[in-house]
Amino acid sequence: MTDYEHILVKTEGDTVRITMNRASRRNSLSSEHLAELLSAFRAAGSSDATGIVLGGAGPVFSAGHDFADVASRDLVGVRALLQLCTDLMRTIQSVPQVVIARVHGLATAAGCQLVASCDLAVAASSAGFALPGGKGGWFCHTPAVPVARTIGRKRLMEMVLTGDTVPAAVALEWGLVNEVVPDAELDSAVDALLARATRGSRASKALGKQTIYAQLDRPEADAYTIALEVMAAAAQLPGAREGMASFLEKRKPVWPD
Amino acid sequence: MTDYEHILVKTEGDTVRITMNRASRRNSLSSEHLAELLSAFRAAGSSDATGIVLGGAGPVFSAGHDFADVASRDLVGVRALLQLCTDLMRTIQSVPQVVIARVHGLATAAGCQLVASCDLAVAASSAGFALPGGKGGWFCHTPAVPVARTIGRKRLMEMVLTGDTVPAAVALEWGLVNEVVPDAELDSAVDALLARATRGSRASKALGKQTIYAQLDRPEADAYTIALEVMAAAAQLPGAREGMASFLEKRKPVWPD
Amino acid sequence: MTDYEHILVKTEGDTVRITMNRASRRNSLSSEHLAELLSAFRAAGSSDATGIVLGGAGPVFSAGHDFADVASRDLVGVRALLQLCTDLMRTIQSVPQVVIARVHGLATAAGCQLVASCDLAVAASSAGFALPGGKGGWFCHTPAVPVARTIGRKRLMEMVLTGDTVPAAVALEWGLVNEVVPDAELDSAVDALLARATRGSRASKALGKQTIYAQLDRPEADAYTIALEVMAAAAQLPGAREGMASFLEKRKPVWPD
Repeated sequence: MTDYEHILVKTEGDTVRITMNRASRRNSLSSEHLAELLSAFRAAGSSDATGIVLGGAGPVFSAGHDFADVASRDLVGVRALLQLCTDLMRTIQSVPQVVIARVHGLATAAGCQLVASCDLAVAASSAGFALPGGKGGWFCHTPAVPVARTIGRKRLMEMVLTGDTVPAAVALEWGLVNEVVPDAELDSAVDALLARATRGSRASKALGKQTIYAQLDRPEADAYTIALEVMAAAAQLPGAREGMASFLEKRKPVWPD
Repeated sequence: MTDYEHILVKTEGDTVRITMNRASRRNSLSSEHLAELLSAFRAAGSSDATGIVLGGAGPVFSAGHDFADVASRDLVGVRALLQLCTDLMRTIQSVPQVVIARVHGLATAAGCQLVASCDLAVAASSAGFALPGGKGGWFCHTPAVPVARTIGRKRLMEMVLTGDTVPAAVALEWGLVNEVVPDAELDSAVDALLARATRGSRASKALGKQTIYAQLDRPEADAYTIALEVMAAAAQLPGAREGMASFLEKRKPVWPD
Repeated sequence: MTDYEHILVKTEGDTVRITMNRASRRNSLSSEHLAELLSAFRAAGSSDATGIVLGGAGPVFSAGHDFADVASRDLVGVRALLQLCTDLMRTIQSVPQVVIARVHGLATAAGCQLVASCDLAVAASSAGFALPGGKGGWFCHTPAVPVARTIGRKRLMEMVLTGDTVPAAVALEWGLVNEVVPDAELDSAVDALLARATRGSRASKALGKQTIYAQLDRPEADAYTIALEVMAAAAQLPGAREGMASFLEKRKPVWPD
């Protein structure tokens, strides 16, 4: 068990629960906080876990960057901070586990970016989402990257230009989250979706998730070039062999990984 | 009339109806079945038809790949099968006709990929859509390619990671299909949409469809480079000339093609 | 004040209102009309204004290209017209101001392209949207470029292939517009959205808007490369400094630009 100051990490069965735990600072993402999250995702990524839940303690999910940390930095310093933040976002997409955001309260700026970067997201009905930089002085340039790839363009522009908070029900309509549930049912909804999302061969699913992110946002022909080669190779892996054999033999599969 | 074993092909007026007819195998896509579909789409593509309807006989639209066909293949063999499958998907997008999927029962894995690859899709309200590889052992890598380009990212991730079936009403909300109608009205709804989608100059529309697929998924400036050149040239074609002349002369157009 | 023949330009406070004023020709986009719009957007873009409203006088927003202008042109001539039209669309995205389309009546072909190209759009509930080239003889190749990047693929195909008019309520569901309001409330809704979208540091927001369009439609890693460098540099600008300082000092910000 690593000692973290800003986060809580708990492993329960096949699930690693990573909780941002800087409640007094609204789970804002100082460089120390980001470094701990990155370290925790890397550790979970190398573990046998099949799922990771990312949540936040206290009143909100995360308020984004910590201005107290940003304000004093020069160009080199802010660049390093944003690189660390981007590494975290990309690591969430590259770990073999299914990552679900458990969103309550507010997910703001880089906090909203975390939600968009997780594979799946479940929100409490009282939750809200915002990219508020545009109504301030520091535009949400990097948070807009995964949000732009999750919701439509006009909706993205409304979020980044107005900076206003989008209620959970609207976020669901726009496809920013997968489910919205009554606040009291948030944990059970997260666990139910995670259970559905982590069935099957672990190795096959990890390859699947990683290949999806590799093929997105490319011309369709290029995406097929990637997906076809991976899928042909994947058919030779033990998980695929067992999946097809069990189907043809009408028996329950026993996943080898 | 070509002799097909696994499909039915019927030409009615300007419409070619291609029906997957391996009901006992849930219209699964063995290499022979895929080869016949590809051959039928190529033949229809060279014909004078303006529209193609792709449907399935029996209880479901299509269950995707035939594991009995896949399980025994080595890497080279699976790669050839997936290449054939991808050729079919790309051909559907490159034929000059408007292609509509007529979806009933289930459209699963490569069956769901067919729906996403057709230009338009109409579903019976009892139909369902799934990319189930992720809950088994062989992830739906290639089916995810056109589905990712049709619905939002969080919804894609939910489909590929859970493998669960998405009901027709949800598929409509997500934009995977254009219309959902009561089961008994499926054929009339397909024909009505096809009639609306095949009006006008045939040559102009064919060029339009093909250019759309060429410009999608590219940075907007690159897409304009393609679309602008095609559109400038297209204005010189007989269809465009007649369209503009008839409009300016306030008479009905007579399409030259 | 520049003399325009086809448009009206009015500056009110921080807002420039550009109104297509060729009502008798349904605000169709002849080359002269396009040239005036381009000139007006460039002038507004160099001004101190924070927002631009694009609307149309008379019964419709805009009917798209003027066939009387197109029909007589050869390839070189049509290409020049489309290049001018594309320059206008790209200029709308590159000016530092927030641009809102105020849509009433119909927005057709290049008129619909204008709506998709503006940052934000508000429509009267009686408005409609169409890409009708596909049911005629000259396919809407270039209008489909920004529309494809704003709504889902199946919906795009339905618009371009059928050419039918999409009612405002459906356009809202598809994400082509941000809001639909009763006709009588169109102006107040436009102004309210513009007010929300133009708060904060003007320089920061301009950089933000321009960077969004630069990073869209690229693989996520490439988008981060762009957004990260801009955001790091932006943190050093006066707007960002003031935004963070005022937040940390719990006082109202005074934007330096």
